[in-house]
Amino acid sequence: MLLWVTVLSILRNMGSDLNHILEAQQFDRKIIEELFKSADKLEKKKDHSLKGKILAAIFYEPSTRTRLSFESAMLRLGGGVIATENAKDYSSAAKGETIEDTMQMVNHYADVAVIRHYEKGSAAKAASVAKIPVINAGDGAGQHPTQALLDLYTVWRELGRVDNLRITAVGDLKNGRAVRSLVYLLGKFKKISFVFVSPVELKIEADIKEYMGKHGMIFTETTSLEAGIKDADVVYMTRIQKERFTNPAEYERLKGSYVLARVHADSMKKGAIIMHPLPRVGEIALEVDSSPKASYFRQAKYGILVRMALLKRLLK
Amino acid sequence: MLLWVTVLSILRNMGSDLNHILEAQQFDRKIIEELFKSADKLEKKKDHSLKGKILAAIFYEPSTRTRLSFESAMLRLGGGVIATENAKDYSSAAKGETIEDTMQMVNHYADVAVIRHYEKGSAAKAASVAKIPVINAGDGAGQHPTQALLDLYTVWRELGRVDNLRITAVGDLKNGRAVRSLVYLLGKFKKISFVFVSPVELKIEADIKEYMGKHGMIFTETTSLEAGIKDADVVYMTRIQKERFTNPAEYERLKGSYVLARVHADSMKKGAIIMHPLPRVGEIALEVDSSPKASYFRQAKYGILVRMALLKRLLK
Amino acid sequence: MLLWVTVLSILRNMGSDLNHILEAQQFDRKIIEELFKSADKLEKKKDHSLKGKILAAIFYEPSTRTRLSFESAMLRLGGGVIATENAKDYSSAAKGETIEDTMQMVNHYADVAVIRHYEKGSAAKAASVAKIPVINAGDGAGQHPTQALLDLYTVWRELGRVDNLRITAVGDLKNGRAVRSLVYLLGKFKKISFVFVSPVELKIEADIKEYMGKHGMIFTETTSLEAGIKDADVVYMTRIQKERFTNPAEYERLKGSYVLARVHADSMKKGAIIMHPLPRVGEIALEVDSSPKASYFRQAKYGILVRMALLKRLLK
Repeated sequence: MLLWVTVLSILRNMGSDLNHILEAQQFDRKIIEELFKSADKLEKKKDHSLKGKILAAIFYEPSTRTRLSFESAMLRLGGGVIATENAKDYSSAAKGETIEDTMQMVNHYADVAVIRHYEKGSAAKAASVAKIPVINAGDGAGQHPTQALLDLYTVWRELGRVDNLRITAVGDLKNGRAVRSLVYLLGKFKKISFVFVSPVELKIEADIKEYMGKHGMIFTETTSLEAGIKDADVVYMTRIQKERFTNPAEYERLKGSYVLARVHADSMKKGAIIMHPLPRVGEIALEVDSSPKASYFRQAKYGILVRMALLKRLLK
Repeated sequence: MLLWVTVLSILRNMGSDLNHILEAQQFDRKIIEELFKSADKLEKKKDHSLKGKILAAIFYEPSTRTRLSFESAMLRLGGGVIATENAKDYSSAAKGETIEDTMQMVNHYADVAVIRHYEKGSAAKAASVAKIPVINAGDGAGQHPTQALLDLYTVWRELGRVDNLRITAVGDLKNGRAVRSLVYLLGKFKKISFVFVSPVELKIEADIKEYMGKHGMIFTETTSLEAGIKDADVVYMTRIQKERFTNPAEYERLKGSYVLARVHADSMKKGAIIMHPLPRVGEIALEVDSSPKASYFRQAKYGILVRMALLKRLLK
Repeated sequence: MLLWVTVLSILRNMGSDLNHILEAQQFDRKIIEELFKSADKLEKKKDHSLKGKILAAIFYEPSTRTRLSFESAMLRLGGGVIATENAKDYSSAAKGETIEDTMQMVNHYADVAVIRHYEKGSAAKAASVAKIPVINAGDGAGQHPTQALLDLYTVWRELGRVDNLRITAVGDLKNGRAVRSLVYLLGKFKKISFVFVSPVELKIEADIKEYMGKHGMIFTETTSLEAGIKDADVVYMTRIQKERFTNPAEYERLKGSYVLARVHADSMKKGAIIMHPLPRVGEIALEVDSSPKASYFRQAKYGILVRMALLKRLLK
């Protein structure tokens, strides 16, 4: 509750522009389109405008995919990087330092901080004492707003639009942060409908459904992959995350629930795409990789570009 | 004994200028003032004079605060960084390589080496075979000379002087490296007096007292925080370091010995400051953070600046 | 078998030029000499031609010596670096991601990938989906081709020739990757003879002997260090690698088999050199370090130069 007040007060102080990036909801349509156009441009033209600036990647749990994406984005813009890969075990946090105290240090070490933490709300706590922009790169069961941004930028690049979308999300919709953040982001756009495909134990939670209702999004739920993907523009596959289960037997029972095979890919609409936040551990068969619909490996490229656009905007 | 001879022979070969930075005693007043004036300048004016140079951060135990401070300093000067965060477990040291052999490698990989090690005397061992400047960034129960330098630079910036100081050091004065190194450094200055506040089990050791006597410094000892801080120009709080205790029960008994509250801060002289090498784990109440006397978060900024000045001088 | 076909098809597609660096055999004499001449030049003249390029160091097991060498080489050429030090435990690999999927990400994050892995064939697997050059920096019991390249460049620099060499390799010749890769590389040169000195349990394997026969190299085997080093141009010492033994008692029995002392060094031919891939754990006595024949610490310098030449060529 206190945390929520903190977040609100931070966001309120930001006016219409961006300061800290804490959750997908804070982006409005105008900012998103500006970021995407900027990302498009950054692919075509070298830009070293962040020369002399420093990004601090403060990761309390490892996430090589996200960390290296931000680091590469910063280097491509001419900036420098300082990083800690596993601050939980290796830094002052192990000695009991709060994230606010750590942020007070980072304030003076860098020009922008990217924070990954295992506890929901951690990035917001850091932002509450930050003098430099803070980017939430995943806070436990909370959000990962730049993942949502790169997902949406993938749609923009591959389908040429971000309205009028039928998205089928498949897998662990209860624990998965990616779908959650994507729904929040798509709340800003028109004619969005979702099909949620999951085992009953891993259904999307009520707060997301409520949010969708408030923002004019339609959704249906099913346990059938075949039924779900039939009319999709985007099939968004996710991993059943072993690390979120307390009962190993339940994980073993559910992990193979949905495997997207080539026959599924081929049955999808012409021009539709298959996405995945990665890593995958079997949800998409290897035979799908050669399908033109498989856009999950191209997402890595889009992630660099959209993070470059974001860093440039935050540090301009 | 052999080690001490090594250190002496290294220092003797250095003439009046700096080469390796191994212990606080080696700085003289002239060099310190030059470094501080250089640090003052570096805050105001961009300086990329270390472009093309490489700093190697070789950390045998993690210390994110120190490592990232050096890395940020090097990047701000236009240089590059190579680093290992936990060489004890991850590098050739795990296979039994000596620090001298590791240094023979670093000689060719970088232009300056920053070494953190869990054993006293390690940086001096590395320096004995070094062809590039070596900076001791903490060697077990030994020293951490750039911490002392940044502490003194904090005093220079916040109080405007480095002579005529009354410093109250609070906490684990037996095991704490920071106070030890600060005393050594202040031996070069005039009219310095210390008040040592600690539980009887964690009193400052005899060698420090002897050093103070030889260098004209006055000190008193007390177990009372209130008595200690009354007339201080600087209150230097330190953490009771869990990792130095072999008996957990003793740590538990002593850890909460001194907590500096807002009422203490307000009772201090006008213009006095509160410092801490950080991380803190409760020795300073959060309510103190908003006091203008709280300079412990500003120390991070001073640390970058004074390390920039040092790197620039070593690599000029 | 499948792997071998993969490697062959990758190499075949490369024509006469370099693309991926997977094994020592792929270098021909012409390329090696070009690389060595380029390395010679890079020592004398600053070259920032890789400005704006990014090297990704993806290490599934730590190897500080190799990782920092590549990172330093890239920085000296003006490029940038992103890295993961222990991908086995820290990255998506821990969640079950294949190296091919990881490479699909790295394709978009960097301009060249340096991969160290604990399993033979891993770099080749990554190369099979790579759009950027992949350098194998050690794949378990497989190869470490740039180690062989730096070893040979050491010979080139110290002896002034790479033909007509008598090389004595000492230690664990069964498990050691370095000697293996060096033999493969020397197969391209003239009048090469080897003396293999090892305990009977750690003799060089049949495939290497067969390769030597096919490429006109002569070899003899002995268990006597004294006999082995008598007429050598190069004595190549190696460590008995504890981590390759399943039986600790056998390691204990064999580890001290050969210790090169000063008296050995002095008994070697005038102008002969002593090499070691390092780290050493006692195979070369400290008293040897001051001998002019001891070239093992200079190898670190040669490693940087030859990797710079290689990176420059791959990214030109």
